[in-house]
Amino acid sequence: MQTCLDCIPCFFNQTLSAGRMMGLPDHEIKRLLDAVGKGLEQVSLESTPPEMARLLQRIINQKTGSQDPYKELKHQSNVIALGYAPKMQQLVVSSEDQLLTAIEVAIAGNIIDYGAIHDLDVDAELQQLMNTERMQLEREDSANFAYQAFSEDLKQAKTLLYIGDNAGEIVFDKILLTVIRSMYPDLRITFAVRGKPILNDVLLEDAQEAGLTEMVQVISSGSDAPGCVLDYCDESFLEVFRSSDMIISKGQGNFEALSDEDAPIYYLLIAKCAAVARELSCSVRDIILKRKQR
Amino acid sequence: MQTCLDCIPCFFNQTLSAGRMMGLPDHEIKRLLDAVGKGLEQVSLESTPPEMARLLQRIINQKTGSQDPYKELKHQSNVIALGYAPKMQQLVVSSEDQLLTAIEVAIAGNIIDYGAIHDLDVDAELQQLMNTERMQLEREDSANFAYQAFSEDLKQAKTLLYIGDNAGEIVFDKILLTVIRSMYPDLRITFAVRGKPILNDVLLEDAQEAGLTEMVQVISSGSDAPGCVLDYCDESFLEVFRSSDMIISKGQGNFEALSDEDAPIYYLLIAKCAAVARELSCSVRDIILKRKQR
Repeated sequence: MQTCLDCIPCFFNQTLSAGRMMGLPDHEIKRLLDAVGKGLEQVSLESTPPEMARLLQRIINQKTGSQDPYKELKHQSNVIALGYAPKMQQLVVSSEDQLLTAIEVAIAGNIIDYGAIHDLDVDAELQQLMNTERMQLEREDSANFAYQAFSEDLKQAKTLLYIGDNAGEIVFDKILLTVIRSMYPDLRITFAVRGKPILNDVLLEDAQEAGLTEMVQVISSGSDAPGCVLDYCDESFLEVFRSSDMIISKGQGNFEALSDEDAPIYYLLIAKCAAVARELSCSVRDIILKRKQR
Repeated sequence: MQTCLDCIPCFFNQTLSAGRMMGLPDHEIKRLLDAVGKGLEQVSLESTPPEMARLLQRIINQKTGSQDPYKELKHQSNVIALGYAPKMQQLVVSSEDQLLTAIEVAIAGNIIDYGAIHDLDVDAELQQLMNTERMQLEREDSANFAYQAFSEDLKQAKTLLYIGDNAGEIVFDKILLTVIRSMYPDLRITFAVRGKPILNDVLLEDAQEAGLTEMVQVISSGSDAPGCVLDYCDESFLEVFRSSDMIISKGQGNFEALSDEDAPIYYLLIAKCAAVARELSCSVRDIILKRKQR
């Protein structure tokens, strides 16, 4: 997916959020915004939003001298999500269709995003999202929620690559992977984290904190963009990517990076902005489980 | 009111809207955004939002070579508003409290803003706004809707300065001024327009198109910012400003510019963004008739 003009004001919003999360005073945040403003010219509309975000994050890192400004926030997100895990786990176990409910939980985890976490009523949000999705399902299986195809493909797959998104959210991904593992014990599951710190995206340490490393193989994609931009990925990751029978691409950043790739991908996300909603012909905040058209 | 950090992403949104309204292709809009990005450093958080918007508009004008890129749009806004005028006029005439209804109409006109006009259901918006305000009034006269004080001050005033805001909207301002004129035939009313083209703000030609010049004295403030920044105003305007018994400051831009001025001002506006809503301790889209505290 290409960056569109509407992404540009959004990058300034993201810079502003980043500065506030780092606790910087206003005049320093202004300097960050100025630096991003100057760097805007280098950013091409041919690139994907994660490529742009990576460039801008480099500017922020240079200005602040911090390589991982979101480190503490990611840890907090993991702790908060781990607090919700038993409840979510229970919800899955007691449901009629455990796979479907676990998908719902994993998508709902996508709302635990850094910007919102402080004033978010997580309970209410989860409840609302899960109701929305049920409604969607009651309207039956659709192109943007291809649950039947997902179930079928999963049944056939021997190898599954799950490309992670954010810290916190990864705890909910683990619940989905636990269900998949219990249904298909022979399926070889690999979970990919980012190669370097970028925004609140998952790193190996988050996979450890979520307890995922004890359960599946966790590898680094090598990408330091907030999305799995294949041009920035390691060869070893690309081998797994190319050879997997099925790939789950989690979150909006991975969708933006991988939407044009020809691979057996399911995109699992909440559409968080108008540009992505337009790309998917859906509404903002719609819940998506979309199979890559081949 | 000082510019806040939240205004910065909004300036990029405004630039994007401006480019689209001018019908520019994406790569040229990108060049505009780049230029605004470069210019951001010159913009101080000590200045008001209209001062910042003026600086950025100059960049846009330089890049596009157009001194009045919104000219056609302003004309269209006037034509649309003139189409609604008889209905609004009728609403006022048939109401119990004509002054109050005319204030409602004038504030409702504040929604006829360039960004929204194409996909706006003007009828529905006006209806909704007027209901909102009635509800507000039923909650009784408040600091943010000081109708009683306004009526009293108007009764006492000998001179009234009305500082206009946008094209289109001016047609609705005229309806309010018509009621005021009929109630107080001896009141000397002056209507101020901007000194030079800036966004979709009112110029003398809009006052003519709205038929306002036939009814009251229309003067230029001299300001080329999208708000009545006194530092940019002509001495002749400042004399009127300083000597008026009562001033009506219409719209958000004038509020941003005049909120710290010590003068007998009533601010009449819809709070259109979070920064202004915070300043007024109200919600976005609240309807405001606020008396300057002296």
